[in-house]
Amino acid sequence: MPWRGSSITSMSAPPVTDRDLASAAATYFRDLQGRICSAFEALEESGTFTHRAWSRPEGHRLHGGGETRLMRGRVFEKVGVNVSHVWGNLQPQFKTQIPGAEESHGKFQACGISLVAHMHNPHVPAVHMNLRYLSTSRAWFGGGSDLTPTFPDAEDTAAFHDALRGACDSYRADAYREFKEACDKYFYLPHRQEPRGVGGIFFDQLASSDPSADFAFVRAVGEAFLGVYPQIVARRKDTPFDAAAREQLLVKRGRYVEFNLVYDRGTQFGFGTDADPEAYLMSLPPLVRW
Amino acid sequence: MPWRGSSITSMSAPPVTDRDLASAAATYFRDLQGRICSAFEALEESGTFTHRAWSRPEGHRLHGGGETRLMRGRVFEKVGVNVSHVWGNLQPQFKTQIPGAEESHGKFQACGISLVAHMHNPHVPAVHMNLRYLSTSRAWFGGGSDLTPTFPDAEDTAAFHDALRGACDSYRADAYREFKEACDKYFYLPHRQEPRGVGGIFFDQLASSDPSADFAFVRAVGEAFLGVYPQIVARRKDTPFDAAAREQLLVKRGRYVEFNLVYDRGTQFGFGTDADPEAYLMSLPPLVRW
Repeated sequence: MPWRGSSITSMSAPPVTDRDLASAAATYFRDLQGRICSAFEALEESGTFTHRAWSRPEGHRLHGGGETRLMRGRVFEKVGVNVSHVWGNLQPQFKTQIPGAEESHGKFQACGISLVAHMHNPHVPAVHMNLRYLSTSRAWFGGGSDLTPTFPDAEDTAAFHDALRGACDSYRADAYREFKEACDKYFYLPHRQEPRGVGGIFFDQLASSDPSADFAFVRAVGEAFLGVYPQIVARRKDTPFDAAAREQLLVKRGRYVEFNLVYDRGTQFGFGTDADPEAYLMSLPPLVRW
Repeated sequence: MPWRGSSITSMSAPPVTDRDLASAAATYFRDLQGRICSAFEALEESGTFTHRAWSRPEGHRLHGGGETRLMRGRVFEKVGVNVSHVWGNLQPQFKTQIPGAEESHGKFQACGISLVAHMHNPHVPAVHMNLRYLSTSRAWFGGGSDLTPTFPDAEDTAAFHDALRGACDSYRADAYREFKEACDKYFYLPHRQEPRGVGGIFFDQLASSDPSADFAFVRAVGEAFLGVYPQIVARRKDTPFDAAAREQLLVKRGRYVEFNLVYDRGTQFGFGTDADPEAYLMSLPPLVRW
């Protein structure tokens, strides 16, 4: 049975006390997926998203479902926008890695949206955005967004950071500085001594005394992304480029692969599960040169 | 100062008792590198190997040197054949990972040859070959070779395995079965539930009561490789192929990247050191599609 966002509440009750928040987050992520895909399709000259819904019935260690959306076009060479909502019991090796999982005896719930866009034109930056809600014996939000240009452009970088700063400022005064630093630290390739791109924000284990404020911040990040990235694409997608610039893009993408396969926690988590590699490796670029 | 194989013995003495064996192994690997590169150049229609010698003087934690040889041509789309010989003190985190390194107080010596070839024609299999000698408070050989076709060909697979079997049989009766099984186990992608290719042999910590017999086996593997792989290339390099077959090759190469960045011990070791990423990432294919 294909998974439908609206049917998620009819499945077995998540083993946590924060059902309403999880359900609201899942509903928001699902809605955001739809709006982002519409915005991207409006910019794409050839192609639309293909949708693939998946579900795992109860009886699996982790059950629930999700929907992957993938578009391969002339502007968006490869873009994936995935949502999922799963709950159940973690594999034993993750109990010590995920906060509160020992206390919950491995009970776990997660929903999220994950997006990576690799663009055909070397003057359009690649982008990543991820928002998620997790709960064990504790509950928290995490996520972030970062921009990876082959040829950094000051205007794009400023617009991207300004949008994210706006979301952060609506949350608390020091959030932007803190989450920007965390992003620079996380999206770094030690073996190359290179940052992955021009940064953005990164946050994890966000659990203030007011979960509804945390959720409002996560929504603000989603809206900030939707407000700024399509504008950057629209501005840059017709910039002329030559074969040499395209080659530089393919080489830059190699760094992206190295980061995601070697360091990215989400990908590492995927390797440790029996999840579909096509989902957690969605981030890998369409064409890469080394 | 560029490194020269012949000058290695004039550098500081390796802190081990097996200087003669290490020196003989390094000399053999260096010689094998030259003969393999000549054989590959004879098959290549456009291009020759570029040589890059490197050295690290004493004062570095690990010192010594090596030479990377890289060719990008029409037959060999990207092939690297590297040799190195280093000694000194391991970084503390490796002391518990490398046998005998705690007893040697981190003193370490290694020399080896490492080869990966990615071929332009989808009907020529990619290949990997690695031979190495390591010493701490103990000393051993390791290595192997495996074949990764996009379109497996029974004749090529049989020829490759027969050659390696010959090398193994000259060592001991059960070596081929044991090293073939180890290869199938090692070159496997659990997240894809796929083998990397059609196998070969893999061995590590080879340290019998007769080190000269171990070294003779390692040389037999080198000679077997040189005897069979150029023949496979010669037989397949002019096989006609279409764009769809080439696309399948690029997708197959993605699995190679996933294996090397996620599972390969040599690559993992490289990430943990301050070694040149261009050397330990030499194995990454020239062009890849996901």
